[in-house]
Amino acid sequence: MNYSSQLLEKAVTEINRLPGIGSKTALRLALHLLRQDEGKVDALANSIVKMRREVRYCNTCYNICDGECCEICSNPLRDKSIVCVVENIQDVMAIENTMQYRGLYHVLGGVISPMDGIGPSDLQIESLVERVRQGGVAEVILALSPTMEGDTTNYYIFRKLEETGVKVTVIARGVAQNDELQYTDEVTLGRALAGRIPFNNS
Amino acid sequence: MNYSSQLLEKAVTEINRLPGIGSKTALRLALHLLRQDEGKVDALANSIVKMRREVRYCNTCYNICDGECCEICSNPLRDKSIVCVVENIQDVMAIENTMQYRGLYHVLGGVISPMDGIGPSDLQIESLVERVRQGGVAEVILALSPTMEGDTTNYYIFRKLEETGVKVTVIARGVAQNDELQYTDEVTLGRALAGRIPFNNS
Repeated sequence: MNYSSQLLEKAVTEINRLPGIGSKTALRLALHLLRQDEGKVDALANSIVKMRREVRYCNTCYNICDGECCEICSNPLRDKSIVCVVENIQDVMAIENTMQYRGLYHVLGGVISPMDGIGPSDLQIESLVERVRQGGVAEVILALSPTMEGDTTNYYIFRKLEETGVKVTVIARGVAQNDELQYTDEVTLGRALAGRIPFNNS
Repeated sequence: MNYSSQLLEKAVTEINRLPGIGSKTALRLALHLLRQDEGKVDALANSIVKMRREVRYCNTCYNICDGECCEICSNPLRDKSIVCVVENIQDVMAIENTMQYRGLYHVLGGVISPMDGIGPSDLQIESLVERVRQGGVAEVILALSPTMEGDTTNYYIFRKLEETGVKVTVIARGVAQNDELQYTDEVTLGRALAGRIPFNNS
């Protein structure tokens, strides 16, 4: 591709490095930026540089935050006796968006996946056990994705926490809202049947 | 959406302003950048800021370039007697990629589109006429998109150039390579028939 300008070419190359952004989209975005005011382009560039340099991870739950301790851990209205274990920051956002949870989190930073070379020591599992050991936690909710890796990690954490005597629960697995039963896979349907609850509790 | 970090939120908001990038993609890209080395994030930010500040437009053809005159106009091997009129920079790249054209370009910066409030004075039409008037141009090739706006612009330029006596041609319209004839629209097929050429010239 002949870009006529090495400055444009360099920008396209850099944008193209982003995941899911191909060379055509990168060119489209670069040409869009070229048509914007300098101030807008500066604002975009500054926001990503500032974010990368200044974002911190919470000392307690490893969620991202702007200071030492995240907004959730430092919120006095949250129930500090419940800790919900999630894979990553997006999962914290997803659960926060339900407005159904008032406890704290523990962000593992991934799940155990030998295929990708990720073992327990690469994740915030030891810090979770230590956190529970220090007391004040009555329940640990495992909220990992229902995949093989998620299930393995759930089981690993469950075994690690056994000695502490803390109550360990796992989020319900069943048929998703508005899913058609006939198109639901058999594992999900089987688990939904096995995990049935009294109708007046639902 | 609760981003836990205002720095992250600001970056997501800025990335989200880009065309075709929704809030979920913006979050995915921001979190990707958060996992990269500072140097890589700086390289991306610098490349777009530098591009926006330093890219210039060629004094002759209005293609982008890094100096006063673009690589194409300043290339002594290009045929300066042929000028190909295109809508934008991407069209220059598309034609350059064919490796079939050795003349120069004239980038209009758009096409006449009263619906979008773009009139002839918003485009580089006057500068094209002036360029032809100064002599040395034997042929002007109109290579705008075969849309209503493109056709209108073609006709407007043709009328403007009539007085100069320059030869004005338009790129061929017909059935695209590998298109199936039965699925080709009637206007295209009609023009392809009307514009038929001797087989031994094809």
